Amino acid sequence: MKLLKRHTLDESTKSKLIRVSNLAVDAAREIIVPFFRSNKFELESKDSKKFDPVTKADKEAEIAMRNVIRKFRPKDGIIGEEFGFLEGETGFNWCLDPIDGTRSFISGTPTWGVLVALADDDGPFLGIIDQPYIGERFIGGLGIAKVDGPLGIKNLMTRKVRRLEDAILFSTFPEIGTKKEFTGFREVADRVRLVRYGADCYAYALLALGQIDLVIEAGLKSYDIQAPISVVEAAGGFVANWFGEPSPQGGQIVAAGNYELLQAVIELLEPYAE
Amino acid sequence: MKLLKRHTLDESTKSKLIRVSNLAVDAAREIIVPFFRSNKFELESKDSKKFDPVTKADKEAEIAMRNVIRKFRPKDGIIGEEFGFLEGETGFNWCLDPIDGTRSFISGTPTWGVLVALADDDGPFLGIIDQPYIGERFIGGLGIAKVDGPLGIKNLMTRKVRRLEDAILFSTFPEIGTKKEFTGFREVADRVRLVRYGADCYAYALLALGQIDLVIEAGLKSYDIQAPISVVEAAGGFVANWFGEPSPQGGQIVAAGNYELLQAVIELLEPYAE
Repeated sequence: MKLLKRHTLDESTKSKLIRVSNLAVDAAREIIVPFFRSNKFELESKDSKKFDPVTKADKEAEIAMRNVIRKFRPKDGIIGEEFGFLEGETGFNWCLDPIDGTRSFISGTPTWGVLVALADDDGPFLGIIDQPYIGERFIGGLGIAKVDGPLGIKNLMTRKVRRLEDAILFSTFPEIGTKKEFTGFREVADRVRLVRYGADCYAYALLALGQIDLVIEAGLKSYDIQAPISVVEAAGGFVANWFGEPSPQGGQIVAAGNYELLQAVIELLEPYAE
Repeated sequence: MKLLKRHTLDESTKSKLIRVSNLAVDAAREIIVPFFRSNKFELESKDSKKFDPVTKADKEAEIAMRNVIRKFRPKDGIIGEEFGFLEGETGFNWCLDPIDGTRSFISGTPTWGVLVALADDDGPFLGIIDQPYIGERFIGGLGIAKVDGPLGIKNLMTRKVRRLEDAILFSTFPEIGTKKEFTGFREVADRVRLVRYGADCYAYALLALGQIDLVIEAGLKSYDIQAPISVVEAAGGFVANWFGEPSPQGGQIVAAGNYELLQAVIELLEPYAE
């Protein structure tokens, strides 16, 4: 079988892929929402020292998402946070994170998200960042860049803030990662207009909305970043590693609303890139 | 005129006060929501170095809230972030902050809130924390402790986590305040299970929901803390300054889900209290 590429898709296949993405997120929403702010879930800790909880909701939702994809796209590959890699034969791989931002989730903060992305060999080209409690869905790729939420549907477009001193920067934790990564982050953080923490995947949605200008993180996995890459790029933004290269596998990540800002930040981060 | 006290109110007056609180927040919502995530507002900076923006929405909403209160409770006092103190003659004072968390607001993050509180000489006894974008309202006082949001109405009740090592702690900025305040905060932060940043007034709502256990902040004003005090106390929690005393005027604040946890934290914070 010849491997599929995003550029060879007809309109009907594109529509189907968008529909399957939405159905997978719908399935996750249905499972996860009753667990949010309830006592129904018991936490397990993958690494008790670093406190990375996994919830029952997370696992059940990933199974539901995998079932949707296997029903409608049985030959595509699937990778997810909880249940590893299922090899496909089409060249398309779905990348799932049912609850990105488990610390937000267990704290009751509505900035965690359901992430779904679809990638070919060149990386992700369709992605959804969904916030089930707010009822807000950001989708980007295959010609679409929009959010559907409490105020209706709105197009996504990053903004044109090009100077670091005018930029709003988000990251999930002030510690960022290693000491070296923290130092690199501070090189940027000390030059911007405003730094905010705690938004998880929602930060990339705000970047795509044109509300903020930069997201810098480290230690990400593919399932953390593939949906954000698709949404941000569809909205006109850029996502790269700290060398300025494409980074669909995660690691040290910077997302910027425009190319000039990305370059300004890479210049500061590159000495700390690994 | 004899000054009013919360304990002397009849049921009809209680209902009216709750209704006026809700109407004031409704009026603020109507004005603020169209400004959220739009380009309609121009920022002014009260203090360009510290970046404390005030939006047009903030000012217009406070006027609307004041109008509601003056219509229904013409003899009560009013204090608000934007337009100062209007002296009353009943002994009751309304305390307004139309957009608490302006940095969240300008970043598009839905954790800012509309705050309304009502106080007598003993401090606030009725308060609302409202998140207009999510459509979520937390109200506490005069026998009520509930949230009305996307998942319906739910009672507020703090949780019984009593040991620091099991607690989830929130604060708005990792810098907290002065160096001394930062050091005090770290005394607690280094002992808890999880620390999260960036939630503004929404953190107190999460505490009242029983989702988190502690909020520590410094440099607060009365209009930042009076509504959170009412909501947290109505849900069974405690709010104090770092000496462990009532602090309706703001300053250094700690909120805890229960008294044991409050005491454990005050022991650590008191050496840094001012």
